[in-house]
Amino acid sequence: MAPPVVTVHGWIRSVRRMKNVSFAHIADGSTTVPLQAVLTKEQSEGLATGASVKITGEWKKSISGGKQAKELLAQEVKIIGEADPETYPLQKKYQTAEYLRSLPHLRSRIPGNSNLLQLRSYMISRLTAFFSSHEFVQCHPPIITSSDAEGAGEVFTVSSNAAATNENKAAHFFRDPKYLTVSSQLHLEALAAALPRVWTLSPTFRAEKSDTARHLSEFYMLEVETSFIDSLEPLLNTVEDMAKDLVRGISNSRVGAETLSSAGEKAGEIEERWKGLLENEWSRITYTEAVDGLQAAVNRGEVKFVFPPTWGVGLQAEHEKFLAQTLGGGGKGGPVFVTDYPRDLKPFYMLPSRGETQEGRETVACFDLLLPVVGELVGGSLREHRYEELVGAMKKMDLVPEDEDELGNLRWYAELRKWGSTEHGGFGMGFDRLLCYLAGVDNIRETVTFPRWVGRCDC
Amino acid sequence: MAPPVVTVHGWIRSVRRMKNVSFAHIADGSTTVPLQAVLTKEQSEGLATGASVKITGEWKKSISGGKQAKELLAQEVKIIGEADPETYPLQKKYQTAEYLRSLPHLRSRIPGNSNLLQLRSYMISRLTAFFSSHEFVQCHPPIITSSDAEGAGEVFTVSSNAAATNENKAAHFFRDPKYLTVSSQLHLEALAAALPRVWTLSPTFRAEKSDTARHLSEFYMLEVETSFIDSLEPLLNTVEDMAKDLVRGISNSRVGAETLSSAGEKAGEIEERWKGLLENEWSRITYTEAVDGLQAAVNRGEVKFVFPPTWGVGLQAEHEKFLAQTLGGGGKGGPVFVTDYPRDLKPFYMLPSRGETQEGRETVACFDLLLPVVGELVGGSLREHRYEELVGAMKKMDLVPEDEDELGNLRWYAELRKWGSTEHGGFGMGFDRLLCYLAGVDNIRETVTFPRWVGRCDC
Repeated sequence: MAPPVVTVHGWIRSVRRMKNVSFAHIADGSTTVPLQAVLTKEQSEGLATGASVKITGEWKKSISGGKQAKELLAQEVKIIGEADPETYPLQKKYQTAEYLRSLPHLRSRIPGNSNLLQLRSYMISRLTAFFSSHEFVQCHPPIITSSDAEGAGEVFTVSSNAAATNENKAAHFFRDPKYLTVSSQLHLEALAAALPRVWTLSPTFRAEKSDTARHLSEFYMLEVETSFIDSLEPLLNTVEDMAKDLVRGISNSRVGAETLSSAGEKAGEIEERWKGLLENEWSRITYTEAVDGLQAAVNRGEVKFVFPPTWGVGLQAEHEKFLAQTLGGGGKGGPVFVTDYPRDLKPFYMLPSRGETQEGRETVACFDLLLPVVGELVGGSLREHRYEELVGAMKKMDLVPEDEDELGNLRWYAELRKWGSTEHGGFGMGFDRLLCYLAGVDNIRETVTFPRWVGRCDC
Repeated sequence: MAPPVVTVHGWIRSVRRMKNVSFAHIADGSTTVPLQAVLTKEQSEGLATGASVKITGEWKKSISGGKQAKELLAQEVKIIGEADPETYPLQKKYQTAEYLRSLPHLRSRIPGNSNLLQLRSYMISRLTAFFSSHEFVQCHPPIITSSDAEGAGEVFTVSSNAAATNENKAAHFFRDPKYLTVSSQLHLEALAAALPRVWTLSPTFRAEKSDTARHLSEFYMLEVETSFIDSLEPLLNTVEDMAKDLVRGISNSRVGAETLSSAGEKAGEIEERWKGLLENEWSRITYTEAVDGLQAAVNRGEVKFVFPPTWGVGLQAEHEKFLAQTLGGGGKGGPVFVTDYPRDLKPFYMLPSRGETQEGRETVACFDLLLPVVGELVGGSLREHRYEELVGAMKKMDLVPEDEDELGNLRWYAELRKWGSTEHGGFGMGFDRLLCYLAGVDNIRETVTFPRWVGRCDC
């Protein structure tokens, strides 16, 4: 039987010219491994790395004895778009991540970056299917909001008119200044007061001037809100089930296999991370147990920290990583849920922990999910669902004036507790951070095609 | 066999008190039809519309002879959150859409609004599965961009500092003023130069002061970009296949059935719309044919327009609706693709139509999808992929200065054509408008929980 004749479109990754024959590697972003085409000397004329081509030929057993079983024996080669080797910024050689970051509009043409886009897409699709099959309703909460006072960090202001100021309200498109959302939580809570299980995968924004490998000014958050729950357990279960389903999917997918095969010497570490998420039940401890454990480890001389672990003080990144490394995955490193942090460390909307508390050691029903290497990935809590207590907490934290009738931009949020309030809770997960962790990427700026951080918003 | 004992959580939609027994309707947003619970007089005490409850009881054959085959015979009733009938804004009676729009944080508790949220979620999930199975890569293009000059309308400015002005660059978070995206097209084109089939479902923003039932300042756009195509046909096929798959899914889903059953006398019209999308191949005509046809219809006295159809002038809403009504669905009304509009009506990035053109009647390879009632739903085109021609068009439309080296914020976009450029094209679809059409909702503000338009950004 004659080999089939096929037509492929793609971009030249490299051309190797022998005396009588040329080999070209063609990629189209669908896999990290390029297709090999065998060309005559004439057919390969003018081909350069980066050029786009259309090649028609026979798809047949490899004659070149390379790694691939089949290759394309070209019959017709057409250059669609040339690439001048003198100026093309992505010649086939090692490029540093810093250099590629200066070319955000071009760097997705690099195999590793293409693979990250493929993995992101797979994750979105798998998570969407997971939540759909678990009867969660996917929502599109607003991006522009009235709330600038959720305690989640600095905000970006939105205006349609440079002349708009607080004093000149008539100039504002929306009458008052508005902001880019820092979290969809408050709006999801409104929806969870109608549909008990809601989720979103939405862009969120922080105007913090953090110039680190873990922070972006614009990033995607996966947020969930669930009604009729009176303990953290269902939330922790949802996080764990969701992540395990996702990693199982990746492990069995083509894009997962390519993530490993293109990771080089890092492949083993990435596979360990996946296993760490899949194996065992995830560890669950309270903040108080965590601090006790950290202090004991210090006292035993097992570890030294820059910041001594102290009850009432936030866990430092070094503490979080140690906890995930020593408690997670049955001691081999893996995810750890830490629950019930001190009240004073957390935002106004969290519900007090159940059970007795020591005077001065009040905690709230919240959790963080810690991972090795990266630290915190998920944060969540039960929400204060009682109107009086919520308004009291808002006043105590100076979010609203003392006069109860003036709850300002948070009036609508408090009002959700007035009629038919329910016990509820939810969580937020940094989607780009999860992608970093699962792909073994060190800098979050690599997972986003056009990353934004302080001073940087190219294209 | 004894009837099963179940526990339900939900909100009271109504309570009917008889002499010895009470009937309560409980809803949790998952369906538009509430569950009926049968309570003793004592159990129903304190229950009011809007209250949240937990009821445990026997799920058994209905004794009340109502429409439902089964009902919940309560054993234990617990009020979780009360609702004061004196103040509850959503008492069980007809509420106008205008009134509900003044309560965006509460109106999702109304069955019709819950159903719209369910339908939106179903659509997201189905579209995600469709694109995934057709090997499109889902992307997260940026929301904050450098480009304010795409010709798609007025933009919102983003800043982290009220004092930031064009003169005072140091005060800008991103060094220069930045904007909320009006379309992800340009960024998707960059990705399609690496992965030939990409799509996104992203928020987009327009600062136009349109106060109509069809416009929002913040809305979701589904956008697609495909490389290696040299005619509009594959794009039109993708739109048609995607929409048909979606409507087939809705027609066979529970949420689709509920959309119809809760639509009252409008159900017939909604079903006609679905059928109009599913049946036949969609009509495809050129702009020139459309104008000729409109003029002929006027000359035959079949229709009168406020604006006379004229070659070189944009199609008015009245023209678009007439075309969809008379040409679509084999004359019964349905979708119509209109292609190849005059060059002067369209943005700089569109590729000229193929074939001969009359002097002064130059057209571009673009299309709009028109629907009955709502008019334009989708717009797309082939993109100018040749560097010189693109830069020429940018200069002709005064988007950049005459000095070629200074392409400003569009330099990166033009540069995509420098190395390995390919023929490509794509389209954008207003996701909220599609939801409007499929659900038979007249005002787009009803399809979005927290709608934003000029002067309105509540919550």
